[in-house]
Amino acid sequence: MAVFSSLTPVFVAVLCVIIGFLFKSSQRRETRSKQQRSDQTARPWVDEDLQDDTETSSKHNEGDDDWIDTTEEENLPHIPYTPIQYSATEMLERSEKFYSLMNLRRSVRFISPEPVPKQVIDNVIRTAGTAPSGGHTEPWTFVVVSDADVKHKIREIIEEEEEINYKQRMGDKWVHDLKKLRTNWVKEYLDVAPYLILVFKQTYGILPNGKKKTHYYNEISVSISCGILLAALQNVGLVTVTTTPLNCGPQLRSLLQRPANEKLLMLLPVGYPASDAEVPDLKRKDLNDIMVTV
Amino acid sequence: MAVFSSLTPVFVAVLCVIIGFLFKSSQRRETRSKQQRSDQTARPWVDEDLQDDTETSSKHNEGDDDWIDTTEEENLPHIPYTPIQYSATEMLERSEKFYSLMNLRRSVRFISPEPVPKQVIDNVIRTAGTAPSGGHTEPWTFVVVSDADVKHKIREIIEEEEEINYKQRMGDKWVHDLKKLRTNWVKEYLDVAPYLILVFKQTYGILPNGKKKTHYYNEISVSISCGILLAALQNVGLVTVTTTPLNCGPQLRSLLQRPANEKLLMLLPVGYPASDAEVPDLKRKDLNDIMVTV
Repeated sequence: MAVFSSLTPVFVAVLCVIIGFLFKSSQRRETRSKQQRSDQTARPWVDEDLQDDTETSSKHNEGDDDWIDTTEEENLPHIPYTPIQYSATEMLERSEKFYSLMNLRRSVRFISPEPVPKQVIDNVIRTAGTAPSGGHTEPWTFVVVSDADVKHKIREIIEEEEEINYKQRMGDKWVHDLKKLRTNWVKEYLDVAPYLILVFKQTYGILPNGKKKTHYYNEISVSISCGILLAALQNVGLVTVTTTPLNCGPQLRSLLQRPANEKLLMLLPVGYPASDAEVPDLKRKDLNDIMVTV
Repeated sequence: MAVFSSLTPVFVAVLCVIIGFLFKSSQRRETRSKQQRSDQTARPWVDEDLQDDTETSSKHNEGDDDWIDTTEEENLPHIPYTPIQYSATEMLERSEKFYSLMNLRRSVRFISPEPVPKQVIDNVIRTAGTAPSGGHTEPWTFVVVSDADVKHKIREIIEEEEEINYKQRMGDKWVHDLKKLRTNWVKEYLDVAPYLILVFKQTYGILPNGKKKTHYYNEISVSISCGILLAALQNVGLVTVTTTPLNCGPQLRSLLQRPANEKLLMLLPVGYPASDAEVPDLKRKDLNDIMVTV
């Protein structure tokens, strides 16, 4: 009895340690499950993609500065910049004409199957490639798909995910917003459009020595490049609709055999508009609603 | 003594609970300090800004889909889309011409003080406003600054932060990258350029009932808009350099009295190039390095 009594503190101590351990590990499990997506249909590759994105945007997009054009060489020589100069009248005319042309651009989901010269697409991509980028990394890959089978596989991947998105993942609010335009997850244009341009952002590059090279501001750079791409398409009378297929990135990357540093940012179906193409009758904000002069 | 012996387990239990509590609260403190920025010069508004950004990008940018144009009205009427059509030859010519023009664009940091007609800037901003946006939210505000005092205040804010960035915050790697181009934190163009365009992204909107309205993909939308803006500037012979002033957002927002839902995304000094403007002699990637055809 004396032995038992003198051992009691030890037992209690051991018990406390065990309780403490159990408490701590249950907390850890809680944290982990909070990190997982709240939807019940989470799949490994979905989480993987989101984690990748978060990492990229939170780590690399914070530590930046100017978009200095840098290259591998030290002390890159500087050359005079020989500009195009227009008179004030010419500038005004050109600015009005370009605005009028761009203002006719609309997101069009009814695309004609009529073939489009590949050379035109080449020039459009070349034009997109003139965009500035953080550290002159040019962190973009444009995958131009015209193969019917591949287009169809892309459609299957996207429609399957979209259906899940609409039905299970999205908040009521967003589904309601989309309903206004009678949109659903059937995306015929993915089969019909002569070209699908899948725009990948390169979250990092690989140096000759095998080390990773940070691509600062890759998402913003690639988005700017897409803006110039949209202008180039509009300039030749082609149409597209800017889409960002949700959760399809890893599957599409795998289908198109893109490397691990490339993440899908946008998918643009491209072609002539269908003869019966329609667009919602919406207006753009006035200049005074988007510009503040100081 | 018997009393003491029988109380011992109680003492040990209390001790364990105290130790457990201390252990747990030290962990909590650790987590909190990990969330804080690792640099030692952190200031309240720096953290605030980064938190805001993280929140926006992690919450809103994941739950998206197509960039459907939606408006406040239900069942928006659809109208026929009347496109511009060019012949194949015209398309090819136009695509080549536009590429040649855009390919002459360079990031120029030597800007002439020569005045630029404000009407031209208005048209350039109008053109940027034709960009597509998630949910047709048009989540951009372009603040065009020509007032000399305000420009100088902007310069002071940016140079002060840049100096800290260069000296303390940035990794050796990034400072090394910038050194290649002999860049430092002195930004004369902020005083000299006739216009500074500060591009703000609206992370959310305010509905008539006072509730917040999510702006899906606001950063990508505004970046696309900037791409079109760069094209519009190049089209009239004006130059700029794409900058993303690090950590200056809240101070500049406050200076320009922008509301809390607006975050600075980019700052573009705009004008004619200086007569002695120079640019680094860098090359762009070949088409085959940025395009993959499937």
